[in-house]
Amino acid sequence: MLGVRKNLMKMKIKIGKKILAKNEDFAAVNRKFFKKKNILCINMISSPGSGKTTILEKTIGQLKKKINIAVIEGDLYTKLDAERIRATGVQAIQIETKGACHLNADQITNALHKLDTDNLDIIVIENIGNLVCPSDFDLGETMRVVVLSVAEGDDKCRKYPQSFAKANILLINKTDLLPHLDFDIKKVKKDALKLNKHLKIFEISAKTAAGMKNWFNWLTEPRTPVSP
Amino acid sequence: MLGVRKNLMKMKIKIGKKILAKNEDFAAVNRKFFKKKNILCINMISSPGSGKTTILEKTIGQLKKKINIAVIEGDLYTKLDAERIRATGVQAIQIETKGACHLNADQITNALHKLDTDNLDIIVIENIGNLVCPSDFDLGETMRVVVLSVAEGDDKCRKYPQSFAKANILLINKTDLLPHLDFDIKKVKKDALKLNKHLKIFEISAKTAAGMKNWFNWLTEPRTPVSP
Repeated sequence: MLGVRKNLMKMKIKIGKKILAKNEDFAAVNRKFFKKKNILCINMISSPGSGKTTILEKTIGQLKKKINIAVIEGDLYTKLDAERIRATGVQAIQIETKGACHLNADQITNALHKLDTDNLDIIVIENIGNLVCPSDFDLGETMRVVVLSVAEGDDKCRKYPQSFAKANILLINKTDLLPHLDFDIKKVKKDALKLNKHLKIFEISAKTAAGMKNWFNWLTEPRTPVSP
Repeated sequence: MLGVRKNLMKMKIKIGKKILAKNEDFAAVNRKFFKKKNILCINMISSPGSGKTTILEKTIGQLKKKINIAVIEGDLYTKLDAERIRATGVQAIQIETKGACHLNADQITNALHKLDTDNLDIIVIENIGNLVCPSDFDLGETMRVVVLSVAEGDDKCRKYPQSFAKANILLINKTDLLPHLDFDIKKVKKDALKLNKHLKIFEISAKTAAGMKNWFNWLTEPRTPVSP
């Protein structure tokens, strides 16, 4: 019985590789588009409930007079997050994956057709809440941001290394809860930098606005487009 | 380009279905084994950092003199959780999936060969921290427990319905943090029961022990083995 399963797994891996290769084709199309339009595209990855949507609401509220932001929301089901973003006054496209665990680059290509991208400075893709699968799928983004809520515990870099290893930015969120938790922030930073020495780390609380200024400054600093 | 991707997806779905069917074969083997040995097997599913391992540490600490418990730990990488469980004085087997996003039934079959299962009352399988993929894979368990940390927000039943719809028990954990959060526990219970009217719900704080007694009572109540 194990032999049959191993053969099936081999076939799955082979097809999985082909799907990843096809995903790369669409990611390249997206990347070219962002470069041509000089748009900073951010792929935001985290566990469920790390506070991605709240971070975006607060970020847009603060920056929308200075820069033009749009959001592509990924969820298994519901349009709740796109509605929350639209309430801030910017464009948001909802992708419902109907149970699938990550976004694919071709879904982003389709979503870009639905956005008015003229004069946009930043597009944020809020990926599915999942610290495992989304990290394997390049969406053509310029930068990748991983969000960790301090309520998740300080062992997450060790247990879910690929999401941290492939990111450009780590936002350690919900720092307002630190007084009520056993969370060693120094350990997390050390673990994260061990996986990825180029990682920029910001400690923030989207709720209280603590530390958000550093994130806003990073988002709005002049930059030449960089490949992830 | 989209056509090629669609064909690949169709092939992936076909192979995925075969893998699920093969998984069912192993799940049936495991289920038969648990029934024969009269072992309550619990498959514990949640997002990363909901507090599964702490719940288990506290549960074992309280109940190990009354009943015999063993744990099968699933993680992408590291043996940290099995070490934490072994420190409580019971058997623990670590499965490292090397990046894969869920446990399969055949991994449980293998782990069972490594456990001394004579006189065991309960085996808990702590699945990978992922609120999406593990819910699709039957491990042959008697009961499925989903854990939600209140720090994750009160919209999770709507956004990740399958994990709640397929569970027997919902543990709402980290209730000690409620005074510091905007979390509507009534809404969560209503949403969860709408998905699954048979769901039993316990509000707990593994940290402060609040509500844990109800969970301990449920775990130790006399029962005839039930199929999930």
